Amino acid sequence: MKLIRHGAPGREKPGVLLADGTRLDVSAFGSDYDEAFFANGGMENLSTWLRNNRLGPPVFRPSKIVCIGLNFRDHAQETGAKIPTEPVIFFKSTTALMGPNDDLMIPKNGTKVDWEVEFAIIIGKRALNVPKENALEYVAGYALHNDYSERAFQTERGGQWVKGKSADTFAPLGPFLASKDEIKDPGNLKMWLKVNGETRQNSSTANMIFGVATLVSYVSEFMTLLPGDVISTGTPAGVGLGMKPPQYLKAGDLVELGIEGLGESQQRVINFSEDHHTSKAVSSS
Amino acid sequence: MKLIRHGAPGREKPGVLLADGTRLDVSAFGSDYDEAFFANGGMENLSTWLRNNRLGPPVFRPSKIVCIGLNFRDHAQETGAKIPTEPVIFFKSTTALMGPNDDLMIPKNGTKVDWEVEFAIIIGKRALNVPKENALEYVAGYALHNDYSERAFQTERGGQWVKGKSADTFAPLGPFLASKDEIKDPGNLKMWLKVNGETRQNSSTANMIFGVATLVSYVSEFMTLLPGDVISTGTPAGVGLGMKPPQYLKAGDLVELGIEGLGESQQRVINFSEDHHTSKAVSSS
Repeated sequence: MKLIRHGAPGREKPGVLLADGTRLDVSAFGSDYDEAFFANGGMENLSTWLRNNRLGPPVFRPSKIVCIGLNFRDHAQETGAKIPTEPVIFFKSTTALMGPNDDLMIPKNGTKVDWEVEFAIIIGKRALNVPKENALEYVAGYALHNDYSERAFQTERGGQWVKGKSADTFAPLGPFLASKDEIKDPGNLKMWLKVNGETRQNSSTANMIFGVATLVSYVSEFMTLLPGDVISTGTPAGVGLGMKPPQYLKAGDLVELGIEGLGESQQRVINFSEDHHTSKAVSSS
Repeated sequence: MKLIRHGAPGREKPGVLLADGTRLDVSAFGSDYDEAFFANGGMENLSTWLRNNRLGPPVFRPSKIVCIGLNFRDHAQETGAKIPTEPVIFFKSTTALMGPNDDLMIPKNGTKVDWEVEFAIIIGKRALNVPKENALEYVAGYALHNDYSERAFQTERGGQWVKGKSADTFAPLGPFLASKDEIKDPGNLKMWLKVNGETRQNSSTANMIFGVATLVSYVSEFMTLLPGDVISTGTPAGVGLGMKPPQYLKAGDLVELGIEGLGESQQRVINFSEDHHTSKAVSSS
């Protein structure tokens, strides 16, 4: 925990410097870092408060999460798939959404849970048949997303990919939605993912086959995009499925990821539990 | 138009007998069928009022529409697909929802729009990993659904079926949601569909490979189902794709369909229009 006080001289507010360098204002904690704070267990209380001060996903229940498959050549190759000539679209259940640093829960009977760092587009206004030239007008901003997948559900149970993409906790989004003006060039951002400290994915949005404007325009040919909808643009090489032999997540593992300008997130892996609070909180209606 | 007056003797209310035999209370029209009604153009005014008295879909913006593919042997065969050993799951965008008798709009560049009469389950409470034995406890009721598809988008544009299932107006639902108690045996209901008066689909839910309880249980293995969510259980043989040669819908066509106990619906086919009111009304947020 790194305590800071920030603001104009004489009007500083108490804050905390997070691991990714962001300054978190903790005025809501209710006490500045004064004698009483230190004398009365403030350090321990602040630490507890910070743990409870959980971030949710930066978008509330979008109408849909649209995912783009195989949008990086090296990832298509590692999974043995052909390079797509048009974007591949699939859906992820919105009940999979959770906060960026919540626990990733292995679903019941899940054995092949895999990671996918992805650059997500958040739609800003209703879009149908939008030309590529205007597509960015329909974008509110961008966010970091981990498109978790259960590969056995996805590819060994018949039918379509949605089966392996939709479990509770499979869509940690955030830490924040960066408004469009914050990201000058969405097509040139470093992206990375580590499992237990070891780098697994290390690429750039520059390696995407289809870019942001193309994808918004393309998806809007097939369905109406509503404000708040999420388009997750696909993952680079380095997923567990592509390793030789394949490696999947188990309880206790720590997944950390980040995209330049979109911050970082981390998920601790836990086993399935009938009444896991995060999935209940996120998916209760 | 068939006018009726229904209710206890001396306390009758004005109504209309619909084509499917249901009695529509038109008290809200504001006039009983008295001298003034007939003298002052009441018949014409009532007719206009009825046209404007549109039915919407009986569920408001569910979190998702889950569809089951190839759930009738004869339909799997007519499309050249294998009989599935486990239910095939795909999603339909919720922006495709519309009222049961609204116009079906051919999407921009759409050429192969096809019909699919389907029995839809409406979820009544949050369901995750629900055993088949208890699955019906999680059902609120049932509704008639036409799972419209654009076959070129679905199968000739790469990737997953969702592309061909999600256009605006592709999910007319209703006329009503029948509560569970109204449908004694969901596994034995006649279902039919006509195009321009010619029968194209004529089957029964008895021919489904996987039944209602199995499907609710199965889908809940892969994702949390929320109250209001829709599971559409698949279509029997007789779709346009299966005809020799295939036949698809064009502007002016009339599609009529029904399921025993779930009423009837009809959709007139229209060409694409940028500002079609139904799709705007349904999908605006």
